[in-house]
Amino acid sequence: MSASGNLMDFLDEPFPDVGTYEDFHTIDWLREKSRDTDRHRKITSKSKESIWEFIKSLLDAWSGWVVMLLIGLLAGTLAGVIDLAVDWMTDLKEGVCLSAFWYSHEQCCWTSNETTFEDRDKCPLWQKWSELLLSQSEGASAYILNYLMYILWALLFAFLAVSLVRVFAPYACGSGIPEIKTILSGFIIRGYLGKWTLLIKTVTLVLVVSSGLSLGKEGPLVHVACCCGNFFSSLFSKYSKNEGKRREVLSAAAAAGVSVAFGAPIGGVLFSLEEVSYYFPLKTLWRSFFAALVAAFTLRSINPFGNSRLVLFYVEYHTPWRRKTTRLGKYPVLEVIVVTAITAIIAYPNPYTRQSTSELISELFNDCGALESSQLCDYINDPNMTRPVDDIPDRPAGVGVYTAMWQLALALIFKIVITIFTFGMKIPSGLFIPSMAVGAMAGRMVGIGVEQLAYHHHDWIIFRNWCRPGADCVTPGLYAMVGAAACLGGVTRMTVSLVVIMFELTGGLEYIVPLMAAAVTSKWVADAFGKEGIYEAHIHLNGYPFLDVKDEFTHRTLATDVMRPRRGEPPLSVLTQDSMTVEDVETLIKETDYNGFPVVVSRDSERLIGFAQRRELILAIKNARQRQEGIVSNSIMYFTEEPPELPANSPHPLKLRRILNLSPFTVTDHTPMETVVDIFRKLGLRQCLVTRSGRLLGIITKKDVLRHMAQMANQDPESIMFN
Amino acid sequence: MSASGNLMDFLDEPFPDVGTYEDFHTIDWLREKSRDTDRHRKITSKSKESIWEFIKSLLDAWSGWVVMLLIGLLAGTLAGVIDLAVDWMTDLKEGVCLSAFWYSHEQCCWTSNETTFEDRDKCPLWQKWSELLLSQSEGASAYILNYLMYILWALLFAFLAVSLVRVFAPYACGSGIPEIKTILSGFIIRGYLGKWTLLIKTVTLVLVVSSGLSLGKEGPLVHVACCCGNFFSSLFSKYSKNEGKRREVLSAAAAAGVSVAFGAPIGGVLFSLEEVSYYFPLKTLWRSFFAALVAAFTLRSINPFGNSRLVLFYVEYHTPWRRKTTRLGKYPVLEVIVVTAITAIIAYPNPYTRQSTSELISELFNDCGALESSQLCDYINDPNMTRPVDDIPDRPAGVGVYTAMWQLALALIFKIVITIFTFGMKIPSGLFIPSMAVGAMAGRMVGIGVEQLAYHHHDWIIFRNWCRPGADCVTPGLYAMVGAAACLGGVTRMTVSLVVIMFELTGGLEYIVPLMAAAVTSKWVADAFGKEGIYEAHIHLNGYPFLDVKDEFTHRTLATDVMRPRRGEPPLSVLTQDSMTVEDVETLIKETDYNGFPVVVSRDSERLIGFAQRRELILAIKNARQRQEGIVSNSIMYFTEEPPELPANSPHPLKLRRILNLSPFTVTDHTPMETVVDIFRKLGLRQCLVTRSGRLLGIITKKDVLRHMAQMANQDPESIMFN
Repeated sequence: MSASGNLMDFLDEPFPDVGTYEDFHTIDWLREKSRDTDRHRKITSKSKESIWEFIKSLLDAWSGWVVMLLIGLLAGTLAGVIDLAVDWMTDLKEGVCLSAFWYSHEQCCWTSNETTFEDRDKCPLWQKWSELLLSQSEGASAYILNYLMYILWALLFAFLAVSLVRVFAPYACGSGIPEIKTILSGFIIRGYLGKWTLLIKTVTLVLVVSSGLSLGKEGPLVHVACCCGNFFSSLFSKYSKNEGKRREVLSAAAAAGVSVAFGAPIGGVLFSLEEVSYYFPLKTLWRSFFAALVAAFTLRSINPFGNSRLVLFYVEYHTPWRRKTTRLGKYPVLEVIVVTAITAIIAYPNPYTRQSTSELISELFNDCGALESSQLCDYINDPNMTRPVDDIPDRPAGVGVYTAMWQLALALIFKIVITIFTFGMKIPSGLFIPSMAVGAMAGRMVGIGVEQLAYHHHDWIIFRNWCRPGADCVTPGLYAMVGAAACLGGVTRMTVSLVVIMFELTGGLEYIVPLMAAAVTSKWVADAFGKEGIYEAHIHLNGYPFLDVKDEFTHRTLATDVMRPRRGEPPLSVLTQDSMTVEDVETLIKETDYNGFPVVVSRDSERLIGFAQRRELILAIKNARQRQEGIVSNSIMYFTEEPPELPANSPHPLKLRRILNLSPFTVTDHTPMETVVDIFRKLGLRQCLVTRSGRLLGIITKKDVLRHMAQMANQDPESIMFN
Repeated sequence: MSASGNLMDFLDEPFPDVGTYEDFHTIDWLREKSRDTDRHRKITSKSKESIWEFIKSLLDAWSGWVVMLLIGLLAGTLAGVIDLAVDWMTDLKEGVCLSAFWYSHEQCCWTSNETTFEDRDKCPLWQKWSELLLSQSEGASAYILNYLMYILWALLFAFLAVSLVRVFAPYACGSGIPEIKTILSGFIIRGYLGKWTLLIKTVTLVLVVSSGLSLGKEGPLVHVACCCGNFFSSLFSKYSKNEGKRREVLSAAAAAGVSVAFGAPIGGVLFSLEEVSYYFPLKTLWRSFFAALVAAFTLRSINPFGNSRLVLFYVEYHTPWRRKTTRLGKYPVLEVIVVTAITAIIAYPNPYTRQSTSELISELFNDCGALESSQLCDYINDPNMTRPVDDIPDRPAGVGVYTAMWQLALALIFKIVITIFTFGMKIPSGLFIPSMAVGAMAGRMVGIGVEQLAYHHHDWIIFRNWCRPGADCVTPGLYAMVGAAACLGGVTRMTVSLVVIMFELTGGLEYIVPLMAAAVTSKWVADAFGKEGIYEAHIHLNGYPFLDVKDEFTHRTLATDVMRPRRGEPPLSVLTQDSMTVEDVETLIKETDYNGFPVVVSRDSERLIGFAQRRELILAIKNARQRQEGIVSNSIMYFTEEPPELPANSPHPLKLRRILNLSPFTVTDHTPMETVVDIFRKLGLRQCLVTRSGRLLGIITKKDVLRHMAQMANQDPESIMFN
C-alpha cells in the first residue's frame, strides 16, 4: 500500500487550512479538545441571545445522536445489500434462476410446491449450468461443466475486484482494522475513509466473497462502517472541523460495523472498546451502543430471509505487507487470479470447501437432531429408540461421519494453507471467518472423536462419572464452537468481546463458561509465543506511529536520555521572545521542517515562555507582510505583551503573542520515561518540552517516544514476559 | 456514617509507614505506578541471578491471576452460602421442617412422594407455624398466628442485623458501591474493605434479606467481593504495598461481585468498567473476566438447586445519608424495627409483597404457558383450542388476572414508598432488586392492559398489521422485563452493562433490541431531570473527593484562577535548595499541614527544582538527628548535589537530595482549567505546581480542582445540558 492513496479521494477533502493537520501526521488531542470546548462555549453563550440560537444550540447538542442514527441506518443498509448480493452471486457460480436471473437459489425455490427441504433444493426453476447448457444434471460431463463454470465465475469476480481496487481505491484492500486502529489513535491518513474507498470497498467485497476465496467480510465491513462515519461527520461542522471529535464518531462507527457483520450489537461495542479504539470516553460508549443498535435493527429489517444468528463473516488481512517482497506480490492482479484459480480448483470437489465458509461454520456448530440430513449426522440409530427427537443419546458413527472426518481433515489443511496466501492480496479481505472455520473444523473433529470414544468406552474413568450409556453426553457442535472461539482468540487476542460475539452469534448463553475458558486459555497460550495480536503485528510491520495502550514500558530511562538535541547535536531551534527579525524566522522555517518552535526569553537564559506552531507562524508572517504596514524583513518579532524598546529608526515591530501557546506541555529532564510514555498515551500529546528549573533543554516528540520504546524492547526482549 | 469506622478493622491494618497514605487522603497514581515499576525492575534483574529467583519472578508475574482465582472462589462460595441461608431463613418465617430444622421448604419437600407441584408444596414434613403450634392449617386463628410469627421473625432478623452493624462494623451498612467507586478513584477509607466488614456484612446481609425488607443483596455482594479482593491482595506484597495495584484487584473483585449477584459474568465485567472503576486498563479487563468466570462457576457448583438464571437481587442504598437529619435517623435500631414492622404488617396480606422480591420478579417475567398455575395466568381458555402448549394465542383475562391487577397496583405503591424509607437505614441494602421489581410490576400491568386491548380490539389500526385474532401477539412477560430494565436504567444510568446483565439473567437474547431501546430511552429521560445517577448523587452528598470521568468541564478559567495562594493570601510555603536550617524546616512542618513542599532555588528567584513530601521530610530529619553526627537545629539542609559553601565554623549540613522528587508535575499559569482537569483525571495526580517561565507561582491540589468544578457548576447550571 503506497502513501499515494487515491487521487479522487484527495480531491474530496477540503484544502487544509490553519488548524488541520498534514497527511501522515499525528493530531494533538489536548488541542483538539480545547478547540471543541471553545466552539461549545461560543454556542452556549450565543444560545441565550435568541430563540433561534437556542434551537441551534439544541440541534448542535443532539447532532452526535443524529450522526449515530445515520451511521446505523447506512451501515445496516449496506450490510444488508452486501448479504443479498453475495447470496445471489455465490449461487450464480452454480446455476441460474429461470424465473428471474437476479434470484438466488433460495429465493428462486421459495415459492416452490415441493414439501421436503431436499426436494425444494432441487426445484425445477433453478437450473444448474449443466442443466441449462447440456440439459444434463448428472454424469461426468455435467460435473466437468459445472466445475469449469464455478472456476470461471470465481476468476471473473476476483479479477473485477482486484482491478477495481487497483484503479480506483488502493486503500480499499485488506481489512482496514489495523489502519483504523492507527487512525483512531490520532494518525492522519487522508482518503483512507473517503467516499471512493467506501464505494469501491462495498462493491469489491461482494465480488471477493462471492468468488469463494478464503476470506471473510467482517473486517472490511468495519472499514465500510467507518467510511460511513467519516462521511456523516463531514456533514456536521462539530465533527468535520475537529479531528478529535471525528474520532469519537469513528469509534462508534466501528462498533456499528461489527454489529452488522455478526448481528452482534453488544459484541460490536466491546470490540470497538477492546480492540480498536484509543480514546473511548463513556459518552462514546453510549453512542456506540446506539449506533450498533440502529445498525443491527436496520440489517434485520432489510434482510428478507431473517438472518439466522449465524450471520458470521469477519475477516482481517495483514499478510499483504508481510509478503511485500515476494515476486508474485509485484503483480497483484496476477496474484489474485492465481490464488483464486487454485482455490476454486481445489475447493470444488470437497463439499466442505465448496460451500461458503459461513455455511460450513453453521453446519459444524449444529447439533445432530433426528431430522438432520447432513453427512456429519449420519449415525447408526438404535431401531428401538423411543426418545423424543430433541434428546438423542450418543450413537455409533455411520459411514457418512467417517467420510466427513476425512473430508474435514483435508479441508482443514487446505484452509490453513490457502488462508495464509489469501490474506496478502490486494483485495478487501478479513480474517475472522477463516480463523473461525479452521477452529470449528478442528473442534468438530475432536468432538466426534471424544463422542465415539465415550460411546465405545463409557466405562473408562474419565467418562464413567458423567456419561451413562444411552445418554447424550458429548455434543460435537459445542466442541466446534469452542474451537472457533479459541482459534479466533489466539489470532486477535480478544477476550471479552470474543465471548460476547460468540454468544450473540449462536445464542448459546449456556455455553458461556466453556467459551470464556477457551478465550482465556487461547490468550495465555498465544501470549506465550508473543504478546502481539494480529492487528498490532500489522501496525508494527507497517511502521505506523501507534502508541499501544497494552504495551507497558518498564525501563529505567529518563526524559533526558530520549530528548533531542542529543549530545553532540546542534542546539534546538528556538525563537526568542523579542529579539529575532522576520527574516531570521523565515530562514529558520526554511531550513527546518519541525512542526513548531519553542519560544524562550533569550538565547542566554533559555527560559521557556511558550510554543509557536510552524503553520501559524508562516501564516501570520505572510498576513503581516501583505496587510500590515511597515513590516519588513528586519522588523523585530515579539511574543511579549508590550513591544521591546527599540532604537528610534528601527522598523515597525511585529506582535505575535496571539499565536503563542502559553501552556506548552513540559516535563523535567529527570522525569522517568515511564511517566512520559504514560503522559503521551493518556493525554494524546504530539510533543513535550523538557526543562530544568524553567530552562529549556530539549524536546520529545511522539516519534521519539516510539523509537525509544522499540529500542528498549529490542535490547531486553525478556522484559516483555513479566507484566 | 462517621469517620471513626470500626476499631477492630483499624487494628487489622499495618501501621502506616513511609510511602503509604493517611486515612481520607487521595493516592498519587503516577507515584504508585512508578513504585511498581521499580519493584518489577528489581525482580526482573534479580531473576537472571539464579533459578530460584527466576521461579520467584515467574510466581510474581502470575500472582495477579492467582489472586483473581482466589477472589472468584471465595466470592462464589460466599454468594452460594448466602443464597442457601436466605432460602432457609425466609421460609423460617412461615414454618419449619420437621425432618431437619435447617432445611428450607423446598429442600424439606424435595424427597416427598407427591406428584404434582402443588401437592408437593404442601408435603407433610413441612409444617406451618399454625400447624405446629395450633394444629390448624386454615381458619382465622391460624392466619393470625402465621401473620404474627411472620412479623416476629422479621423483627428478630432486622434487630440482629442492625445491632451487629452498629456494634462491630459501621462500614457494613448500605450497598457500598458509592464508597467503592470513591476508593477506586484513589481515595483511602481505611477499614472500609476490612475483614470485619466482610464478616459482618455477609452475616447481616442474610438477616436483612430474610427479614423481607424491601432491599436486595446485589450491591452489598459487590462490597463483599471487594472485601475478599482486599483480603487476598494483602497476602501478596505486589498488591498490599501498592495502592494503585491494589485498586486493579478491587476493580476485578467488583466484577466478580456482580457476576455472582446476578449469575452474569460478562455483565459483571461491564458493570465494573462502566459504573464502578476509575482506572481500568485492558489487563484489568482480562483479569476481571477471569475472576467473574471463576466466581460464577463456583456459585453454580455450590448451589444445589442449580439456580435458574433469575438469581437476581442487586441492591444499593443511598438514602441513609440523605436522611441524615431526620429525627428517626438518630435512633438507627428503632428506625429499623419500625420500618421492618410496617413492611411485615403490610406485606403479609398481599401475595405479591409476601413472597421474596426475586420470586416476584421471576413470576412477572414469566410467560403464561398452558400449565402455569399462577394467578397472573388465569385466562379463559378456548375449549376448542388445539394448539401446542408452547404457542398459546391471546385469550381474554379471567377473574384471577383482574384480582392480580389490583393486588399488583397496591403492591407497586407500597414498594415505591417503603423502598424509599428502607434505603436510608443502617443495614446492608441494595437498590437493584427493588427498582427492578417496581419496573417489572408497572411493565406487567401495562403488558396485560395492551394484551387485553389487542384481544378485544384487534381491528384497531395500531393492532391490525401485526396482530391477527388467534395469534400470540402480546407477551406481558416481555413488558415486565423491559419495564424492569428501564426502571433500573433510570436509577443507575447504566446502559451497556444493564442490557448485558438483563439478558444474562433471562437468557432472552432475542429481546436485546427492546432492552437496548429501553436502556437508551430511560437514560435520555432520566438525564433530562439531572445528569447524576444514584451513585454519583450519593458520592456528592457525602462530599467524597471524586473526579468523575463523566463530568465535562467546559469553562474558560485558567490555572491561575484556581491555584493557591490567591491574591491577598500569604505566599506559598516553600523550601529553598540550600539556605534553610533544620529548625526552619521543623517550624514550617509544625505550622502547616500540607502534604509536601515545593523546593526552589532561592526565595528571590523562585525557580522550581523539585518537590519534597512532608512524611519523608519528617522521617529524614528524625533519622538524621538520631544517627548522623553533627546535625543540629541550625544545620543547613540542602537539596543540591554538592553542599553549599558555608562559613568555616558552621555545623555539618544535611543532604536531602534523596527525598527530592525531581520531576514534579507542572503546568503554566495560562493553562486552561479544562486541560488541568483532564490531566488530574487521566494521570490521577494529587497536586500540580503552577509556574511561569520556570518561576513557581502556586499549587493546585485535587481538592482545589473539585471545589472549582463545583463552583463553576453552581454559577452556570445550564452548561450541564450541553454535552
